[in-house]
Amino acid sequence: MSLIQALKWRYAVKRMNGQQVPQEKVNNILEAIRLSASSMGLQPYNILVVEDLELREKIKAVANNQPQITESSLLLIFAAWDNITPAHIEVFINNTAEVRGVSLESLDGFKNSLLGIAEKNTPEQSFQWAARQTYIAFGTAIAAAAIEQVDATPMEGFNAPALDELLNLKEKGLRSVTLLPLGYRDADNDWLVKMKKVRRDKDKLFIKLPA
Amino acid sequence: MSLIQALKWRYAVKRMNGQQVPQEKVNNILEAIRLSASSMGLQPYNILVVEDLELREKIKAVANNQPQITESSLLLIFAAWDNITPAHIEVFINNTAEVRGVSLESLDGFKNSLLGIAEKNTPEQSFQWAARQTYIAFGTAIAAAAIEQVDATPMEGFNAPALDELLNLKEKGLRSVTLLPLGYRDADNDWLVKMKKVRRDKDKLFIKLPA
Repeated sequence: MSLIQALKWRYAVKRMNGQQVPQEKVNNILEAIRLSASSMGLQPYNILVVEDLELREKIKAVANNQPQITESSLLLIFAAWDNITPAHIEVFINNTAEVRGVSLESLDGFKNSLLGIAEKNTPEQSFQWAARQTYIAFGTAIAAAAIEQVDATPMEGFNAPALDELLNLKEKGLRSVTLLPLGYRDADNDWLVKMKKVRRDKDKLFIKLPA
Repeated sequence: MSLIQALKWRYAVKRMNGQQVPQEKVNNILEAIRLSASSMGLQPYNILVVEDLELREKIKAVANNQPQITESSLLLIFAAWDNITPAHIEVFINNTAEVRGVSLESLDGFKNSLLGIAEKNTPEQSFQWAARQTYIAFGTAIAAAAIEQVDATPMEGFNAPALDELLNLKEKGLRSVTLLPLGYRDADNDWLVKMKKVRRDKDKLFIKLPA
């Protein structure tokens, strides 16, 4: 399915039917997330993958009891790094040298510029930047799921500190940013399924410059 | 081209060749942006479309002189609303009622919850939230361009206050967040074209829970 057709088809599903998403489709969605654009290629986030229903019940309790969290097939939690540390940059540079088959020394300039940026920012500023990067991966995941004809519900409405506590994310250097349950719409019980998608008209959203 | 193939093909192009992107491809990319997922469907941003070379020269001067800004075929500027105001919500609710063919009264609950959120947040908090939403559209645009086999360079490295000033964005209630020149790679002069894409391995990026 084309991206545009897929985006027209998708919506933020309010009720899911519990049907399982085939592993191949899950793999394709995860691979699209892994390949998402990311500033400097840093990917300053992790994605937590939760199939376990018992754990999802606990997550639902800190997410306004939204039913899709347990009616889905699995739940993705997008979590940004809570800081950008020299250790992160070390791992990233080592991976870059290995993948590209170049010497660590040849990456010293790049490494130092990254270290400079990390040092200049407070942990909160670094987290906020990482969170924005996370939204690129999140947007890619939403599009990828739609192309696979898998339903999804992008969610910001949850108690992030409570979720971080529940999943011990602080220990992992992470803070939860968004949720994305993946599954299939329950068309009989979802009030939103029949509603037309509302988007601003082209002439309202795009501004040609100079005027 | 499949999304995964497209994401493998794309990279943050460093030099472009000035070749024009066909209007049909531009339209497809803009339509994908317009259809992007957005919390509550609010789309709290505008996208500025700049083809004019003279204006792009001025923009380049406040964007570290990155050559793609003028070597591209056109430049998209993703700008978030600098606040979420009752006027924005009014327009959004009116549009929703019109598209869905429902009465304004039937949307009162939804409207009041939006007004409540807007009122609770400071303008800066609203802007930061709008900026995150912008990154969903930005991520969708990057994927859409790649599917169309159009090159793009996602950019955060520019002087946002200077750009806002140059384009009078404050008057429009906007603040620039990211740039996306669209065009075609200049393979002979782009040092990055031959480099392998670096992404974290699946087992580093995804964390299965419970462990």
